Amino acid sequence: MRRGLYIGRFQPYHLGHEAVLQKIADEVDEIVVGLGSAQASHTLENPFTAGERISMIWPSLRGLDVTCYVIPLWDIARNAVWVSHVRAMTPNFEVVYSNNPLVVQLFAEAGVEVMRPPLYRREVYSGTAIRRMILSGDEAWMRLVPFSVLSVIEEIGGIERLKNVSRSDDS
Amino acid sequence: MRRGLYIGRFQPYHLGHEAVLQKIADEVDEIVVGLGSAQASHTLENPFTAGERISMIWPSLRGLDVTCYVIPLWDIARNAVWVSHVRAMTPNFEVVYSNNPLVVQLFAEAGVEVMRPPLYRREVYSGTAIRRMILSGDEAWMRLVPFSVLSVIEEIGGIERLKNVSRSDDS
Amino acid sequence: MRRGLYIGRFQPYHLGHEAVLQKIADEVDEIVVGLGSAQASHTLENPFTAGERISMIWPSLRGLDVTCYVIPLWDIARNAVWVSHVRAMTPNFEVVYSNNPLVVQLFAEAGVEVMRPPLYRREVYSGTAIRRMILSGDEAWMRLVPFSVLSVIEEIGGIERLKNVSRSDDS
Amino acid sequence: MRRGLYIGRFQPYHLGHEAVLQKIADEVDEIVVGLGSAQASHTLENPFTAGERISMIWPSLRGLDVTCYVIPLWDIARNAVWVSHVRAMTPNFEVVYSNNPLVVQLFAEAGVEVMRPPLYRREVYSGTAIRRMILSGDEAWMRLVPFSVLSVIEEIGGIERLKNVSRSDDS
Amino acid sequence: MRRGLYIGRFQPYHLGHEAVLQKIADEVDEIVVGLGSAQASHTLENPFTAGERISMIWPSLRGLDVTCYVIPLWDIARNAVWVSHVRAMTPNFEVVYSNNPLVVQLFAEAGVEVMRPPLYRREVYSGTAIRRMILSGDEAWMRLVPFSVLSVIEEIGGIERLKNVSRSDDS
Amino acid sequence: MRRGLYIGRFQPYHLGHEAVLQKIADEVDEIVVGLGSAQASHTLENPFTAGERISMIWPSLRGLDVTCYVIPLWDIARNAVWVSHVRAMTPNFEVVYSNNPLVVQLFAEAGVEVMRPPLYRREVYSGTAIRRMILSGDEAWMRLVPFSVLSVIEEIGGIERLKNVSRSDDS
Repeated sequence: MRRGLYIGRFQPYHLGHEAVLQKIADEVDEIVVGLGSAQASHTLENPFTAGERISMIWPSLRGLDVTCYVIPLWDIARNAVWVSHVRAMTPNFEVVYSNNPLVVQLFAEAGVEVMRPPLYRREVYSGTAIRRMILSGDEAWMRLVPFSVLSVIEEIGGIERLKNVSRSDDS
Repeated sequence: MRRGLYIGRFQPYHLGHEAVLQKIADEVDEIVVGLGSAQASHTLENPFTAGERISMIWPSLRGLDVTCYVIPLWDIARNAVWVSHVRAMTPNFEVVYSNNPLVVQLFAEAGVEVMRPPLYRREVYSGTAIRRMILSGDEAWMRLVPFSVLSVIEEIGGIERLKNVSRSDDS
Repeated sequence: MRRGLYIGRFQPYHLGHEAVLQKIADEVDEIVVGLGSAQASHTLENPFTAGERISMIWPSLRGLDVTCYVIPLWDIARNAVWVSHVRAMTPNFEVVYSNNPLVVQLFAEAGVEVMRPPLYRREVYSGTAIRRMILSGDEAWMRLVPFSVLSVIEEIGGIERLKNVSRSDDS
Repeated sequence: MRRGLYIGRFQPYHLGHEAVLQKIADEVDEIVVGLGSAQASHTLENPFTAGERISMIWPSLRGLDVTCYVIPLWDIARNAVWVSHVRAMTPNFEVVYSNNPLVVQLFAEAGVEVMRPPLYRREVYSGTAIRRMILSGDEAWMRLVPFSVLSVIEEIGGIERLKNVSRSDDS
Repeated sequence: MRRGLYIGRFQPYHLGHEAVLQKIADEVDEIVVGLGSAQASHTLENPFTAGERISMIWPSLRGLDVTCYVIPLWDIARNAVWVSHVRAMTPNFEVVYSNNPLVVQLFAEAGVEVMRPPLYRREVYSGTAIRRMILSGDEAWMRLVPFSVLSVIEEIGGIERLKNVSRSDDS
Repeated sequence: MRRGLYIGRFQPYHLGHEAVLQKIADEVDEIVVGLGSAQASHTLENPFTAGERISMIWPSLRGLDVTCYVIPLWDIARNAVWVSHVRAMTPNFEVVYSNNPLVVQLFAEAGVEVMRPPLYRREVYSGTAIRRMILSGDEAWMRLVPFSVLSVIEEIGGIERLKNVSRSDDS
C-alpha cells in the first residue's frame, strides 16, 4: 500500500489541481490532500475558508478511484518544525508530490521522497491568475474550475467577498 | 441534503463512537466528524496524533452508507470564538450531535440545532476507561475498539507510549 | 493628577469590588479598572465574556465621582513580561491596588508602588464563593452583586451557562 | 437603547475620527469604540500603544453627550472568527459603523447591520497621511488632531519614536 | 566529535544536576544543556526566569573540561513537533541524556539515541523537594545547590518571590 | 563586573559581527550575544536555524578573552513587551550595543544605556549583501565570513537551501 501527500492552498481549487491528482492517482493507492493555510480566509491571497475549500474539492475527488483524505493544515510560523506538524496531522505517507520549492526543500531535508508532478498548463491554471480574473471581472475563470467550485463561490457570494477584501483601508 | 456534525477526541476511537455514528447515519445524508484537540498527542488524555486517529476512524466510516468527512480541529483557548472556528473548518452543517455540555452550550448560544445522541453503554465505551485499562494492563479494552484501532496502536507502539507519557518527572 | 490601577477578573463583579473601588476613589483622581483573563469565558473559573463583565461593571462605576477606564487585559503566558503588557494597554498609572500575591510581586519587582486595599468581608464577597452558590442553587448570591449583574446574568442565561460548563465529559 | 460599534486603529486619533463620532452620536444612545491592533506599537503603521491611544481619545469623547466605551481589540490572525472575537470583548451592539471593506464584509456575512459613516475630508484626515507628515517634518499635522493627541505625543516623545521605528536595519 | 544533549528545567539548578553533568562529561566531547520551559517564571513550578537560571548554571559548567552550550528552550504545546523544535534550536547532537519519560519517548520515536543518566540521590536532589524546603523555611536546601545558585536567589529575592507566587487568590 | 548585550540575527554571522564583538570585548567583562528571530529558518531573510547560527558563531567567540553567552531570542509580536522578554531570557546586562533603530528606541524608552558600535565596512559586511551574493553565485561572500560559517553552510547544504526558499510559488 503506497500513500502520497499532495499539498496546496486551493484558493480556489481548479482543473489544474484535478489533472495533477489524476496523475498521482495512477501512481499511489491512497492520496492525502493537505489543505494549506487552513486558518486563513477573507484575504486577497486566501479568500476562502478551509470548509469552503473542502466543499469545492470533495466532489472532484469522488471521480478518482483511489481513497482520498482531505486534511486542513494550519500554518505554523516555524519552517523547521513544519514537516513534523504535517506528519502529525496526516496518515503515514511514503511520497510527497509538490512543486513548491519550500515544501520540496523541507521534506528533502527530512529525508522524505519528493516528486514534482508535471504542471498542467501552469500559465492558465493558477490560483493567483484565477483570483486576478475574478477581480478584473474576466469571467473566463469559470471555465478553469470544476462545477462544484462555481456553485460554492456563488452560494457564499465569493466574488463580492474577494473584491471587498482586496480593497485596503486606513482611517 | 442534511449534514450533521459529530465531534469527539477519539482517544481512541471505540465501538461506542461507531454505534453513535451508525444512528446519526440514519438521520442525515452526510456526517462531518470533527476530530477535537487535533494538535494534542503524547499525553495521558491525548496519547494519539490526529493522523493516527484518522487512520483508526477511516475504515469504520467505510461501513456507513453516508458520506463522511473527517476534519481535525485544533483547540483554540477562546470558547467565545470556538463555534466560528469549527464552522470555518467544516462544510456547512444543519445539526450538531454531542453530549459534551460545553459543546452543547456553545452551539446552543450560537443558535445551532443540537441533538444528544443516545450513549451506547457509556460506563464501558469511554476513552478514559479504555486508556485506564491499557495502563493497568487489562486487555479487555481490545474488545471495545474496532480492529483498525488495534492495528494502529500496535503499529505505533501505542501501549508503551501511553505508559511512558503517563509517568511524570521532576529533576 | 494621580491614577490608580485596580485589576480583577470580576467573575462576576460583586459588592466587594464596589466597596474597594469606592475606597480607591477617595485616594486617586482616576481609576483604571483592568479586566483580567479577558479572553476567557464559558469555563467554571471564567464563565462570563469580557463584554458581559464590562456591562456588569459599568453602571456601578457611574456612581463614583472619579473617571474610570475599564480595560480588558488578555492573559499572556509570560509572567516576566506581564507588567509591560499591562502598561502598554493602559493609560499611565502611579499606583496599583491589588491583593493578588502574584500581581503584587510582579509590580513590586518592576518598581511600581502597590497598595493592598482592605478586603470587604472576603469570606462572603468572593467570585469563587458566588459561583459556588450559583451552582448549588443557593440564591443568596443575588444579594452580593449589584442589580446590573443580576440583569446581565439573566439576559444571557448565565446560570444555565455556568451549570453546563461546570460539567465535564469524555466520550 | 441602541448601541453602535465604531472601529479604528487611531494611529493617531484625529479630527476626522472626532467628526465621525459626533455624527454617530446623533444616531445611537451609546458608542463602543473598538481600538484595533491593540497589541501593536512602535511600528511605522502602529507607532502608539493602546494605552497611549486611549489617552488620546478619552478627552474628546467627554465632549459627546452619549456614553462611550473604549475597548482595545487585539488582532487575531483568523478573519473567520474575528466577529465573534469582537462580540466577546464588547457590550452588545446593534449596528457597526465602518468604511473598512474587510470589516464591512465580515460583519455583513455575520448578519450584523453595517453603516458607512460619511468620511470627513478623507484626503486630509487620514492616519497614514498624518504619520507621513510627522516623518517629513511637516508640522501641519498638528492642526489635524485634537490637543490631547498633541500632548500625549509630546509627552512620550512620539515624533522621535515614529522616526526611529521607520528606519529599518540589517546587520 | 560526540555531542550530548541534557535537558532540565533547573528550578533551581542543584548538585544532582552537577553530578549528572560530570558523568556526561566523561562520555562526550561537548554538552548542550537545554533549559526547558524557558518562557516560564514566577510560578510555583517555575519560579526563576531563563536568564536567572543561566546565571545559576554557568559557573558550575566552568568546572567541566568539556565545551557546554546553555540554550533556553521555550515550551510548545505540540509534543509531536517538540523534537524538531529542540533540534532547530541546538547544535547537532548524537545522544540525549534524560530520565524524563516523555522526553525519552519523543526522542526514541524520532530515532535518536537516548541514555538514562544515573540519578544522584534523587529523593534529596530534586527541584520539587528544594522548592518545598524553601517554602517551608527549611534551610537545609542551601546545602543542595552550588554557591552560584545561593547568590542568584539572594540577589533577586528569590525566596520571597517563591513564597508570594505560591499563594493563590480569587477576588 | 560590566556585562553588555549585543543583538543580531546573524543570517549569516560574518567578519563585521566579529569585528564589533572584538571592540565590545575591550569595553565589558562579559558579552551576552542575543540571537534574534531564533524561531525563524528556511526563509530568504532567515535561512539558517538558531542551532546552525550558534554553530557558526561559537568558534569565533573562543577567540575573545571575555566570557560570552549565546542566547536564542524568539520574536514576539509585541514591541511594547520586547525589552522585558529579552531581560527575562538573559543574565543581567548594564549596556546594550546595537545599531538597529527599533532596538535602540525600545531600550532607550526602558531607560537602558545603549551604545552604537562603529559599523565595520557596512556596505560589504551585511547579512543582506551576503545572502544576495550567495543567491547570485558570487563566491566573494566566502571571504566575508569566518571559516566556521563556511563549514556549517557546506555541511547543511545552505547554498541550495537559500536558493530554494528564495523561489516562491502559487499553484
